[in-house]
Amino acid sequence: MKECNAPIGVFDSGVGGLTVAREIIRQLPNESVVYFGDTARVPYGSKSRDTIIRYSRQIIHFLRTKNVKAIVIACNTASAFALDTIEKELEIPVIGVVKPGAKTAVETTKNKRIGVIGTEGTIRSALYTEYIQSIDPTIEVVGKACPLFCPLVEEGMLHDPVTDEIAARYLKDLQDENIDSLILGCTHYPLLRGTVAKIMGSGVHLVNPAYETALELGRLLQQKQICAEDGGKVEHAFYVSDAEEKFKDFANSIMPFQIELIEQIQIESY
Amino acid sequence: MKECNAPIGVFDSGVGGLTVAREIIRQLPNESVVYFGDTARVPYGSKSRDTIIRYSRQIIHFLRTKNVKAIVIACNTASAFALDTIEKELEIPVIGVVKPGAKTAVETTKNKRIGVIGTEGTIRSALYTEYIQSIDPTIEVVGKACPLFCPLVEEGMLHDPVTDEIAARYLKDLQDENIDSLILGCTHYPLLRGTVAKIMGSGVHLVNPAYETALELGRLLQQKQICAEDGGKVEHAFYVSDAEEKFKDFANSIMPFQIELIEQIQIESY
Repeated sequence: MKECNAPIGVFDSGVGGLTVAREIIRQLPNESVVYFGDTARVPYGSKSRDTIIRYSRQIIHFLRTKNVKAIVIACNTASAFALDTIEKELEIPVIGVVKPGAKTAVETTKNKRIGVIGTEGTIRSALYTEYIQSIDPTIEVVGKACPLFCPLVEEGMLHDPVTDEIAARYLKDLQDENIDSLILGCTHYPLLRGTVAKIMGSGVHLVNPAYETALELGRLLQQKQICAEDGGKVEHAFYVSDAEEKFKDFANSIMPFQIELIEQIQIESY
Repeated sequence: MKECNAPIGVFDSGVGGLTVAREIIRQLPNESVVYFGDTARVPYGSKSRDTIIRYSRQIIHFLRTKNVKAIVIACNTASAFALDTIEKELEIPVIGVVKPGAKTAVETTKNKRIGVIGTEGTIRSALYTEYIQSIDPTIEVVGKACPLFCPLVEEGMLHDPVTDEIAARYLKDLQDENIDSLILGCTHYPLLRGTVAKIMGSGVHLVNPAYETALELGRLLQQKQICAEDGGKVEHAFYVSDAEEKFKDFANSIMPFQIELIEQIQIESY
């Protein structure tokens, strides 16, 4: 197989990264995706840097057995903790979700006040703040953890008065912060975009890192001249580290096509 | 140290098992407890049997370094998946939370219709059903998964209209099932007992496996003649596999004394 027709490796701690895979498939329809969800070790948000780097290395080792031509870390925690280390160890391109989202927010904000919502791990580690301020130290970043958003999304309660009520409570603090851009800093959150947009109002621009990451990947493939050829065979494959059932239900509820083949692998042996 | 004055090892995937530790400390005030919460790998509910057995073995290996005289698996998933295997590998007594709760429900029910609420893993695996029907095959068991209860409890939303609304939805099906006993089949749920009792009404007896497990442990220690001596030193210790802050806040909100010492350990190395 020609290198350019090789698949893109995408990984996350679980199902959330499917929102990134979905954007890649939508924006780059010639590309094939090999997705890995580390459902046996989910969530990553509360784990240490060393652990996350070790897990990421194992996953990349697995993805490389599928001959991927590039890797997307579709997980906020792993992007923050492992990207810089992994990048140096690989000769194929690798990108994460944090930098593309942060960069767009920096370009978007006019009043230099950016909000970030995410898991407790993402907000506590201030990973978006750090990257945003490395680009422009005069920008203020306000973070807010929304721990119930992931379970609500995984319960399928995307359009529900309870979710609206929880969102209203979480976002109340941010409404008083005069931000003009808000990063959806968890891969589950694009599925709650409508709810968040309604509460924050039209004065706040929502940044979806999944969307920005797919854009960035497209640019990168072009620059490296490894875009898949038109009319080539497009095949997506899905792997998980724990039982595949629950993954399948969630995946099929958000992907634009029916996923039949999901394989469970023993990630610790990679 | 005399064996009888050695501590009881108690473990769970996270903070939920503290409701069991609390009951043990309340009912058996001479006993010391060594608690381990696997906060780096929480939740267990969605993980496979093999993974749970492997994790449980590591934890027991760690607890034994603290010279525990008995082990309580204060986690429904691990009790269901790992107890039988672990029991054969250990020469000290080990009990789980499933059997004591199920036994009490069997003794309590008059119309032979028992309800069980728990995580998706607990309900899908039908572990209570299996054990109840092994005692009395004529009993009907109706299960209902309540996936948002744990995150709501961990957010501290014990008395909140949102929690009432979610509970009302989850329990609606059970209200039509004519059950007379309901097992709170997740260690977090005793903290929502008031909410569940109000919805189910006085005709439904709520079974709290944490309470029944502490009773069972007391009987077992007496039978083996390893009860701690009156007037001995009582010390409780708490360990977690991830950052201790969040655990501390939750623990101190539900335990009858202030916990200061919580130590983080690297569980994967056991």
